[in-house]
Amino acid sequence: MSNTERIPVGIVGASGYGGVQLVRLLQDHPLVKIAYLGGDSSAGKPFCSLYPHLNECVDLVIEPIDLDKIASKCQIVFLSLPNGLAYQMAPPLLEKGCKVLDLSADYRFSNLDIYKKWYGGDRQDQAIAATAVYGLPELYRDRLYTAQLVGCAGCYVTASLLAIAPLLKQGLVVPDTAIIDAKSGTSGGGRQAKVNMLLAEADSSIGAYSVGGHHRHTPEIEEICSELAGHDILVQFTPHLMPMVRGILATVYATLRDPGLVREDLITIYKAFYRNSPLVKILPGGTYPQTKWACGTNLCYLGIEVDQRTGRVIVMSAIDNLIKGQAGQGVQCMNIMMGWEETLGLPQLCFYP
Amino acid sequence: MSNTERIPVGIVGASGYGGVQLVRLLQDHPLVKIAYLGGDSSAGKPFCSLYPHLNECVDLVIEPIDLDKIASKCQIVFLSLPNGLAYQMAPPLLEKGCKVLDLSADYRFSNLDIYKKWYGGDRQDQAIAATAVYGLPELYRDRLYTAQLVGCAGCYVTASLLAIAPLLKQGLVVPDTAIIDAKSGTSGGGRQAKVNMLLAEADSSIGAYSVGGHHRHTPEIEEICSELAGHDILVQFTPHLMPMVRGILATVYATLRDPGLVREDLITIYKAFYRNSPLVKILPGGTYPQTKWACGTNLCYLGIEVDQRTGRVIVMSAIDNLIKGQAGQGVQCMNIMMGWEETLGLPQLCFYP
Amino acid sequence: MSNTERIPVGIVGASGYGGVQLVRLLQDHPLVKIAYLGGDSSAGKPFCSLYPHLNECVDLVIEPIDLDKIASKCQIVFLSLPNGLAYQMAPPLLEKGCKVLDLSADYRFSNLDIYKKWYGGDRQDQAIAATAVYGLPELYRDRLYTAQLVGCAGCYVTASLLAIAPLLKQGLVVPDTAIIDAKSGTSGGGRQAKVNMLLAEADSSIGAYSVGGHHRHTPEIEEICSELAGHDILVQFTPHLMPMVRGILATVYATLRDPGLVREDLITIYKAFYRNSPLVKILPGGTYPQTKWACGTNLCYLGIEVDQRTGRVIVMSAIDNLIKGQAGQGVQCMNIMMGWEETLGLPQLCFYP
Amino acid sequence: MSNTERIPVGIVGASGYGGVQLVRLLQDHPLVKIAYLGGDSSAGKPFCSLYPHLNECVDLVIEPIDLDKIASKCQIVFLSLPNGLAYQMAPPLLEKGCKVLDLSADYRFSNLDIYKKWYGGDRQDQAIAATAVYGLPELYRDRLYTAQLVGCAGCYVTASLLAIAPLLKQGLVVPDTAIIDAKSGTSGGGRQAKVNMLLAEADSSIGAYSVGGHHRHTPEIEEICSELAGHDILVQFTPHLMPMVRGILATVYATLRDPGLVREDLITIYKAFYRNSPLVKILPGGTYPQTKWACGTNLCYLGIEVDQRTGRVIVMSAIDNLIKGQAGQGVQCMNIMMGWEETLGLPQLCFYP
Repeated sequence: MSNTERIPVGIVGASGYGGVQLVRLLQDHPLVKIAYLGGDSSAGKPFCSLYPHLNECVDLVIEPIDLDKIASKCQIVFLSLPNGLAYQMAPPLLEKGCKVLDLSADYRFSNLDIYKKWYGGDRQDQAIAATAVYGLPELYRDRLYTAQLVGCAGCYVTASLLAIAPLLKQGLVVPDTAIIDAKSGTSGGGRQAKVNMLLAEADSSIGAYSVGGHHRHTPEIEEICSELAGHDILVQFTPHLMPMVRGILATVYATLRDPGLVREDLITIYKAFYRNSPLVKILPGGTYPQTKWACGTNLCYLGIEVDQRTGRVIVMSAIDNLIKGQAGQGVQCMNIMMGWEETLGLPQLCFYP
Repeated sequence: MSNTERIPVGIVGASGYGGVQLVRLLQDHPLVKIAYLGGDSSAGKPFCSLYPHLNECVDLVIEPIDLDKIASKCQIVFLSLPNGLAYQMAPPLLEKGCKVLDLSADYRFSNLDIYKKWYGGDRQDQAIAATAVYGLPELYRDRLYTAQLVGCAGCYVTASLLAIAPLLKQGLVVPDTAIIDAKSGTSGGGRQAKVNMLLAEADSSIGAYSVGGHHRHTPEIEEICSELAGHDILVQFTPHLMPMVRGILATVYATLRDPGLVREDLITIYKAFYRNSPLVKILPGGTYPQTKWACGTNLCYLGIEVDQRTGRVIVMSAIDNLIKGQAGQGVQCMNIMMGWEETLGLPQLCFYP
Repeated sequence: MSNTERIPVGIVGASGYGGVQLVRLLQDHPLVKIAYLGGDSSAGKPFCSLYPHLNECVDLVIEPIDLDKIASKCQIVFLSLPNGLAYQMAPPLLEKGCKVLDLSADYRFSNLDIYKKWYGGDRQDQAIAATAVYGLPELYRDRLYTAQLVGCAGCYVTASLLAIAPLLKQGLVVPDTAIIDAKSGTSGGGRQAKVNMLLAEADSSIGAYSVGGHHRHTPEIEEICSELAGHDILVQFTPHLMPMVRGILATVYATLRDPGLVREDLITIYKAFYRNSPLVKILPGGTYPQTKWACGTNLCYLGIEVDQRTGRVIVMSAIDNLIKGQAGQGVQCMNIMMGWEETLGLPQLCFYP
Repeated sequence: MSNTERIPVGIVGASGYGGVQLVRLLQDHPLVKIAYLGGDSSAGKPFCSLYPHLNECVDLVIEPIDLDKIASKCQIVFLSLPNGLAYQMAPPLLEKGCKVLDLSADYRFSNLDIYKKWYGGDRQDQAIAATAVYGLPELYRDRLYTAQLVGCAGCYVTASLLAIAPLLKQGLVVPDTAIIDAKSGTSGGGRQAKVNMLLAEADSSIGAYSVGGHHRHTPEIEEICSELAGHDILVQFTPHLMPMVRGILATVYATLRDPGLVREDLITIYKAFYRNSPLVKILPGGTYPQTKWACGTNLCYLGIEVDQRTGRVIVMSAIDNLIKGQAGQGVQCMNIMMGWEETLGLPQLCFYP
């Protein structure tokens, strides 16, 4: 496709890790071109002054955020900003005819009261928020076809939901027995200077944080789980920080309703559930995912085990937190919104080791 | 104390990580001296040819394993060997009057049928095995005072049991709801060349293994848990490999019998339970352990949380897998067996960061 | 291109890191198909049993090494074997009409006496070895157009030579002042279980090895340097092992003949030298390469500095040791041998961070 | 010694990595007690709120910096502050009778013009600065016996000077051929939130910085080297950042004046030079230091090699940047100033691996 025919795309919040992943992915996407990079503190800087390895392939300068200008240049806009900013930009951009994909939490909640409880802010955009589609294609592909506004699922939530969705959707487990022990690389914290994210602090060590339901992802996971199950679900979610850059592993435990189910039954059920999802890979029995296999890709690897002594199913889910857990998810949603092949421009093979 | 008055100690299996930790710890211990280092494949080599940084402080040569000679030289013998060897050496050493501390699994099971199911071998030493004390001083201190043979608790099991013991001992949780999600550095795999333990494979990645009760530590944990609870307990134990050298974090989940208990109640209960255990540190409410805090020490840090939404208690336990989880545990047991202060020669402060 | 029109390629020694990189790269290459995977100890195993993340995209079984069969199936053969095996296979494969690219040291030396001194073996193939082209396209592109046999440059050597070549070729530095301080990730040691490559040993530590010219890469570097300079050159080469999986940084020091040269002069000279080399990136003044920028790509980043106080030039070179330093180099050579675009199928953008 | 007889010591700047190392080391020192912890931004906080693992062993609160109060409480004061602050505090503290050990660069230069060129500031304290002793005991032990003010050598400089001092002092190498390629863990950057020190940026990558003599440590190294050599010396110093927390390796290259010298000659010379320095360990021929051996200790390991082909000597030096390179160095200097045994309270054995 000639460059003039490609769809022009903009990225607001281009300087962070979400932004640089989007740049990297869209650079290789055959049907779009990057028409605008915007930012606040980094406005005026050439993008490659922040990421020198992109020196020869991205010659854009980061521009101040001007919604009229963005809308005049772009058909599709990715918002990759801290929570609480997207909901101020999305309504005018939608009004001007753009499709909007938000990588923050702003449009992940159908109930804005829950949003306000966890994130604060004075949201007046309930009507628009109600039109937002939850951006997890494997669960909400049908709604994405016609979406104008997408609130892309976050990294922990993506790993958790892809692991647990078939169990809840099909009523296979006892409600409220679900425990999600999640482990993430530190890049999930973003490109912000925080002492606890220094290599000197975080390397060669592991620890949990926000234990006991005190993590903002808990209500997000519970909202979708409840929708899948058809009734309210409480989930025990514990995030841990790992001494590595990229990757999330979620280890999910739940008690089976039918203790007669064996591992192969579950593998069959998962394969059927994800039959139309080319980016979810169900591993064969006895093989459990390594996060490294998913790094640099938009895949989710699922390993499934049943412990017949305890009657529990254990599902392990591995993704790249910055791709399938963030920017790649956004591109996958965009592909579906645009009627393109879902996997277009998305890497599916890691470089191992 | 003059060197001639120190108690002579021997280490069989000195070349591995258990051995080198023992050498390091005993070198600083004020009441013992290392009188013998033994090994099989490394026999004849100066110890410092394996560990050059110990060049000037350990001038012993690794000797072939000769039980008569060991018994003539040593009052105390540490066995730091692969599973299945100690039970061939401990009986004659005991008969010759040595006290024996075994770091392998050979003497951790009161029921040898369970041992044989998981480790194989043709054990004929039930009578001697029945005299072995389980080497986890915080739970079995009283039995250690008079022990001649100790089967020291392993690394995963130590982290798990110290986290869960007060809950089971005091009947605070619903039986069989316990889930232990454990994360370990790779040094737990020992100083053996295995492809999956190469830095090139294990760095920048995490994954579970032996999922679904298929890990040898599961029966060991269940045996002690059942003894603590006074009835049979099934535990869900999942080990994960972390991209770091040392440290274990066990995240333990269980459902409280009394949903009215709050975090501070639990902290009080744990402090009381470990009142006489100077090496267990209960963290204040809202603080969760980092494995790095325990590394290079014989401490166990415990962080405790209650999720009142779900009715679960979550206990996080951090140890150094090679010290409190292996060699330091052995030294702590030795101190008690000898009537010495429990903490003698054991490091209690890490170098941070 | 339809699959039947793609050129069939074979990989002998597919189970190691060189093999899995080749599989990964060739899988995405638009003009070839993998027709054969061969190995010795792994013969009979499905390739994806070794690398489960490739489960759905590579369904080949590793076959025993049978040269007739290889030649009947493949037009191009990559040999990715330990040193000393390729020279037994390349001559018959060439005779049967295959093009051969060897990733080992066997065909890197025009003078087999040097090979024999460092690698041993009884080489009788001087005539064939004399036809081998040294596989470093940036320096020997012209010779590759007609090559049938290529001895691909190794990882340390690639990083070193790309940094130093313009200085020697143009006589800019005082002979024999060149010092190469090289730092490599541990994957350079291959997928072989060695104690010193365990994560437990190699993580959180750095050290030099083969110091003082005792590394096999020293004669290889010196041979090419001497050819570039037009006279014998001695080089001081010191390899160091880094606590990371991938990447090499070579820091090269040399004394300038003309102390009046400034950094910008050198940058201009380097840009001219590599004008036709799209995979070498000269960084702007004051920017020095991070190995991470090159990881997952076939690029070489060069940073150049002049210290006018000391009269030295310092060149830093960063590559991915398994791609530009091994498998990607082979693919780049193949592209040139086949008359294809040099960069075909080769990744040029890392995922950062 | 009873606690009342211990010498009271204060630490100004206790919250950083230098501070926490000092706390850790002085806690185990048999002749001192920590009487004061001071800080600016952290004033008012309990020390253990910053470092929870020290919860039970340090109950001091960080106090505002009040020089009168410090002097009334402490005989010895460590200043562990950013450059440019110590020279405002040391003169009044000295006047009030304290001994002062400064860990910053403020008192490392006998010539304040050089200080001002690299660090700025309006220094009016030349007279006091002239009384400061350079705090590197292995080179200036004699001067330390009577010192009241010590400017402790920095981490890179310590590793570099201990490697090169015997060569320069004894005129063994050609002036100005010295190249120091230094590699450091990221904790050298301190406990300050900087983007380039995030684990997400610095892990799995290596790179040089301040190349070409543009590093503040270059003039410091050159000043001491020139004093050792008896004439002006230019040194090529290049620092690199490593993906690990602690440890520095300096690889030093220089051309021997006498090409007949062999490795064993050099080892003999080094052993003689450091005969009275118990904390410097000269490794046997063919053994090169791993930084891990030095971590958690106040040792410096030196490995020595001669390349007779090139006529160069290569010396590798490994230290823990936060102990021998910072806080432990300060304690070692204090021991000497106080007439105590040099090694008192200083760890000499790492925990390996």
